[in-house]
Amino acid sequence: MNEADLILLPDKGAAKSDLIDLRRAICDHALTGPVRVVEFAMPERDAAAAYAHAVDDWHAAIAAQWRACIAEHLPAGGRLALLVWGDPSLYDSTLRIAERLEAGGQPLRVRVVPGLTSIQLLTAAHAIPLNALAGAVTITTGRLLRAHGWPGDADTAVVMLDAGCAFEVLAPQGVSIWWGAYLGMAQEVLIHGPLAEAAPRIAAQRAELRARHGWIMDVYLMRKEQADAK
Amino acid sequence: MNEADLILLPDKGAAKSDLIDLRRAICDHALTGPVRVVEFAMPERDAAAAYAHAVDDWHAAIAAQWRACIAEHLPAGGRLALLVWGDPSLYDSTLRIAERLEAGGQPLRVRVVPGLTSIQLLTAAHAIPLNALAGAVTITTGRLLRAHGWPGDADTAVVMLDAGCAFEVLAPQGVSIWWGAYLGMAQEVLIHGPLAEAAPRIAAQRAELRARHGWIMDVYLMRKEQADAK
Ligand SMILES: C[S@@+](CC[C@H](N)C(=O)[O-])C[C@H]1O[C@@H](n2cnc3c(N)ncnc32)[C@H](O)[C@@H]1O
Ligand SMILES: C[S@@+](CC[C@H](N)C(=O)[O-])C[C@H]1O[C@@H](n2cnc3c(N)ncnc32)[C@H](O)[C@@H]1O
Repeated sequence: MNEADLILLPDKGAAKSDLIDLRRAICDHALTGPVRVVEFAMPERDAAAAYAHAVDDWHAAIAAQWRACIAEHLPAGGRLALLVWGDPSLYDSTLRIAERLEAGGQPLRVRVVPGLTSIQLLTAAHAIPLNALAGAVTITTGRLLRAHGWPGDADTAVVMLDAGCAFEVLAPQGVSIWWGAYLGMAQEVLIHGPLAEAAPRIAAQRAELRARHGWIMDVYLMRKEQADAK
Repeated sequence: MNEADLILLPDKGAAKSDLIDLRRAICDHALTGPVRVVEFAMPERDAAAAYAHAVDDWHAAIAAQWRACIAEHLPAGGRLALLVWGDPSLYDSTLRIAERLEAGGQPLRVRVVPGLTSIQLLTAAHAIPLNALAGAVTITTGRLLRAHGWPGDADTAVVMLDAGCAFEVLAPQGVSIWWGAYLGMAQEVLIHGPLAEAAPRIAAQRAELRARHGWIMDVYLMRKEQADAK
């Protein structure tokens, strides 16, 4: 961060003001020199439009904001930094938006600084391995889990971006779940157990936490039992 | 590391002396107080025995070594630390061996400090996302890829623990690969391209590097093209 000339912080509006506050606090904490920190109004995704279309428009709108900030604050070029939640490789659009800028004629050299993902915070908090012994793992989304059920033949599935409790669509027999919300934060909550027994506990806890904090971010790992025995 | 009373370093013999040297250097660099650092002879896995059986014996032998070190150096209890390559959740047996100690009557409270995985170093070095837009990702092994081909229906596959070039079993049409060896190290090498064209380059480079350095660690991500367009 201290090597940057400009840091752009997305302002996602009042409902997500925790996030911009956190980013401001990180900048205050980490920056030791005169790095310019600029906030821009983060465009919203059109929740009513078809998913792929809405995402395309949304990324285009964000790219336009970046372009405007670069033109204003780095007219002669320089180093722009963006803060990404967790690791930028995982369900994050920053790299895709950078690609759009390049495709639009903005010369860029992208450098990624990896970070810890919420999956690693989940496995660390529960002190469990991600994979069963010598087994495969599928990382998927709540949307895909709802649409297709258990993903492929991996014995471990990790689910992110789940707006509800998509695990409820699965037959729970022989499946265990390790769930975590607000990982790495003061509000962190962990639940684990056989899916049949843990699912209703998680659903109730999730609703309660969401009401209490106004928002929730959660991720979970499910494993078919006996997976380790094979 | 500085909060530990004892750090155990596995000595894997002359062929892997780079690894113990690296661990010693990390201890020298990081430790600021009087933490006891003890090396133990790491048992070898029986390469001739059936996989599951060999792993079971191997983990039992490592657990026995830990137990002996604990009895000798922490007879009254205390904090034992183990250094794990990358993140302990991913294809690593440390947590499973700790479970064995617990199952054998050794009371333990395990705390995991997450680290960056080689997958994150790979995606960061290539500046690419792990998942296609809203898509699933399967993490698997060279052994499973050889046995079962493309894993399930995820459009992205990451392959670890590949002793050869298991990607050669796939029909390469429509697949791109991003490969990395010695990630994060001075010897780091990256190759990417359409699988049909990159596969022979990777195979040749891999053989050459392995001969030159005496060992190799590599990981790769493959994506079905047009995955982002769906
Ligand atoms: C847009 S994705 C970003 C993921 C992020 N790049 C990462 O490395 O984890 C947001 C999803 O990540 C998960 N997530 C992110 N932060 C989390 C946290 N602190 N606790 C639990 N889940 C989290 C949730 O599944 C959430 O829906
Ligand atoms: C026993 S697993 C350990 C993985 C480790 N826990 C991690 O977080 O990446 C070893 C495998 O990880 C991958 N790997 C680990 N370190 C690597 C590196 N520096 N460069 C490339 N691949 C690496 C290779 O696929 C290797 O076969």
